[in-house]
Amino acid sequence: MQITEQIAPRQTTLWGEKVYLETDDGLRVPARKVVLDGGRETLYLYDTSGPEGCRLCEGLPPLRRPWILARGDVEEAPLRIPPPAGCRVPAGLMRPRALRGRGPVTQRYYARQGIITPEMRFAAARENVDVELVRQELAAGRALLPANINHPESEPMIIGRRFLVKVNANIGNSPLGSSLEEEVEKMRWACRWGADTVMDLSTGPDIYATRQWMLRNAPTPIGTVPIYEAVEKVGGRPEELSFEVYLETLIQQAEQGVDYVTIHAGVLREYIPLARSRRMGIVSRGGAILAAWCQAHGQENFLYTHFREICETLREYDVAVSLGDGLRPGCIADANDPAQMAELKTLGELAQTAWQYDVQVMIEGPGHVPMNLLAENMEKERLWCQEAPFYTLGPLVTDIAAGYDHISSAIGGAMIGWLGAAMLCYVTPKEHLGLPTKEDVKEGLIAHKIAAHAADLAKGHPLARAWDEAMARARFAFRWEDQFRLSFDPERAGAYHETSLPTATSNGEDFCSMCGPEFCSIRRSRLLRQE
Amino acid sequence: MQITEQIAPRQTTLWGEKVYLETDDGLRVPARKVVLDGGRETLYLYDTSGPEGCRLCEGLPPLRRPWILARGDVEEAPLRIPPPAGCRVPAGLMRPRALRGRGPVTQRYYARQGIITPEMRFAAARENVDVELVRQELAAGRALLPANINHPESEPMIIGRRFLVKVNANIGNSPLGSSLEEEVEKMRWACRWGADTVMDLSTGPDIYATRQWMLRNAPTPIGTVPIYEAVEKVGGRPEELSFEVYLETLIQQAEQGVDYVTIHAGVLREYIPLARSRRMGIVSRGGAILAAWCQAHGQENFLYTHFREICETLREYDVAVSLGDGLRPGCIADANDPAQMAELKTLGELAQTAWQYDVQVMIEGPGHVPMNLLAENMEKERLWCQEAPFYTLGPLVTDIAAGYDHISSAIGGAMIGWLGAAMLCYVTPKEHLGLPTKEDVKEGLIAHKIAAHAADLAKGHPLARAWDEAMARARFAFRWEDQFRLSFDPERAGAYHETSLPTATSNGEDFCSMCGPEFCSIRRSRLLRQE
Repeated sequence: MQITEQIAPRQTTLWGEKVYLETDDGLRVPARKVVLDGGRETLYLYDTSGPEGCRLCEGLPPLRRPWILARGDVEEAPLRIPPPAGCRVPAGLMRPRALRGRGPVTQRYYARQGIITPEMRFAAARENVDVELVRQELAAGRALLPANINHPESEPMIIGRRFLVKVNANIGNSPLGSSLEEEVEKMRWACRWGADTVMDLSTGPDIYATRQWMLRNAPTPIGTVPIYEAVEKVGGRPEELSFEVYLETLIQQAEQGVDYVTIHAGVLREYIPLARSRRMGIVSRGGAILAAWCQAHGQENFLYTHFREICETLREYDVAVSLGDGLRPGCIADANDPAQMAELKTLGELAQTAWQYDVQVMIEGPGHVPMNLLAENMEKERLWCQEAPFYTLGPLVTDIAAGYDHISSAIGGAMIGWLGAAMLCYVTPKEHLGLPTKEDVKEGLIAHKIAAHAADLAKGHPLARAWDEAMARARFAFRWEDQFRLSFDPERAGAYHETSLPTATSNGEDFCSMCGPEFCSIRRSRLLRQE
Repeated sequence: MQITEQIAPRQTTLWGEKVYLETDDGLRVPARKVVLDGGRETLYLYDTSGPEGCRLCEGLPPLRRPWILARGDVEEAPLRIPPPAGCRVPAGLMRPRALRGRGPVTQRYYARQGIITPEMRFAAARENVDVELVRQELAAGRALLPANINHPESEPMIIGRRFLVKVNANIGNSPLGSSLEEEVEKMRWACRWGADTVMDLSTGPDIYATRQWMLRNAPTPIGTVPIYEAVEKVGGRPEELSFEVYLETLIQQAEQGVDYVTIHAGVLREYIPLARSRRMGIVSRGGAILAAWCQAHGQENFLYTHFREICETLREYDVAVSLGDGLRPGCIADANDPAQMAELKTLGELAQTAWQYDVQVMIEGPGHVPMNLLAENMEKERLWCQEAPFYTLGPLVTDIAAGYDHISSAIGGAMIGWLGAAMLCYVTPKEHLGLPTKEDVKEGLIAHKIAAHAADLAKGHPLARAWDEAMARARFAFRWEDQFRLSFDPERAGAYHETSLPTATSNGEDFCSMCGPEFCSIRRSRLLRQE
């Protein structure tokens, strides 16, 4: 593919330039351009930050709309489920009409027809891989490309073990705190720090409006857990839930543009006794809601019994399903237990069903798992779920890291990413304690970007290797600013170095600021090479 | 063993109480006592913080002195190598006389004689294991118990794969910054946050005085790299080094009480060309110094050729040797390369030699290693070094985490700890950028304590499991303060929770502060159990 570079407005010294690489078929793919060694070396890094300079109350440009319309398989009509009265959505973000497919309009469907979409070409160009690989992996169910036709603002990306390991950031307000605007700002901030997808887990008031603000401003796919909103609609009482309320919620979210939804359809009634004898019971919010419903009604989980109807809706909008692990272990003692494994097997069956409808699928994974039990999770998932992409929450490798759970989670995430997990759900330092602030979001993201990158390296991804090799060259040559440019947080790296070496200019000295000139091993090593 | 609890002066609410557990043979072993569930549950955690209330200029009580003297195999005499003139050591910390063994006085020697020392009993009680296991592992060389007879202040601890994974903190000033007092304070701070050993890597002025201050105030074993001081003595010019200068330095440090020394005796002349063709060359300070010496003299590394004489000195004081990996990889591209592997094989031969002299040994390991190459490091070390304890620097699983290298290192450290590494050398967020502040020391330590604990859990250590299970019970019961008490940093965990839930009392509410009452899965799960 012929790629031409175009410069975007933003340009800061250390961060590099946000550029668009233009493919020979006219797609403009975002990248962070890092110029090194005084211009002798250039690295293009994967960029998730999205278009800049747009006003929050107007939203991002609808990049994918022409592609979607050009396929000629959708129709536009007034919303089937209108917004709640009085919801706080500015006029510039309202979308009174929505698209709906006349048949399946999923990327999986196209891939299986042998059709290569612009979305696939865009995702392939971002990863520097052949688009045919993208199509094949989508068709086989080993990857998904979340791309709701009503979220044309999103920049296509692909999730699967053959591609870069992705990181999801959870945000969203709760009844206990944080405003709508704060959460939208957090979402933009998350994209700035490398979130590949963002899940809006809001449970508080203004849930519709928050989501509308987010979707119109989100350059990444947005995921949700619709059961949260459904429970809000029935006054917070799970036993009042019905499939009708749920489906209405799902359709409304699909019309808004949600790209993937967590559905806890694997929490079967017969598994509840297994979870009851655990140390921590059920720690998934969705899982707990559905278990309560099953108990109250003495019936099977309605998400399971109505799963085919759900799939019929999802494929009309290309909403992907993330099969939720409602019975994931909430502590080390519960890891890989019968409740978890029984549900995982059911998720594999549900994946088959979703694929029959050409709905894109991923499988959610734990949770709290000690290192010695990690590999079994990946092995069983591959076996039972036919290699559907695995999307894990960490896993956290110990229960006791409160205040530092992002590190516990990065350890497990790196390992399972290497073993084949396709996307890691981040955990912030506030996990188990409270809602993350912007700073927590950043800390959580960088920890998991490191984990994902370490997994990419261990899998031998060429883009990952090139990045590390550029850093090694910069270190050996004492190119300090280049080292900062190659860091996840160039400003922090630069500031740390400045603090340590206040008297020298930041790029001039040829010794390490930890050791000083006499004890600088690299300096000695360079002298050695010259001999 | 019968254990009786004695309360030490310090007592804070969240941190728990520092207590001493008295064994039936009269040893007083430190522990952190955590009282949970309103007094219904008690957990004793391993504690490294050392005696409190001592004045820095007087030092800690000489706990081990009576044990050492009672063995009747040492003599006390004026220092063979007196302190440098004008060194800044307060009178209360001066020790004009030192002990020296009349023969080998190492814990390995005693273990091989079938003698169980108080040091072994102390270490065994701390880990809650049979003292015979400690003796056997020491005798077999699979563990070491660093305990210089001139550092009687240290609380005995054991390093080996059958025991808890340990964490070392590197501190020490450089010519570029930080004062003597600051470094001693950092050492105490490191012990407060869980450092099992501390290495003093000072290279600047006052190197003798810094070490004297540290040793007299260190409750943990102290390690050094004597070649740093030796190079200072010859004006910073490696080519001026001689074995005589080195040996004098070593004896002086042994008389001061250094518990283990890194010796880069495996940097052989023939390996230097292997390192020269690498991306990063030699990144170990000691390795670079010795390579420079070999090149300048056209001779074999004098630490290698004189290694037997070195061992003869070490065993007179029970200074353990940490065989330094002077050729460790400094970037992902250099991992597991011929230079590194050649040196590791030589370290195995040197370990055999040291053992012949009954010197205690550990083997230093990398460095920068991608996850897929980690296991080979451990396997080769076990094979070539006959299971001598492996002491790794991380490993860092990517090069690009500058500013967050503690996380990159915790990922690799957790994995290699699980695979069998006995001690992890921490890395702070300032790695590659500058010298760590106190806050960096804490962040680095906690990240690696999490890694070590995760490794203990994965290996099935009962103490580790008990800790996590206590946390799981506290979470399920909404005992918030208990959760803080069980965290590495109770104050931080408490503060994070307070911030999120300002209106509620910290221990009263029975729902999670992330979700609020309606969406609290644990609350629902508990209700479920009651049905």
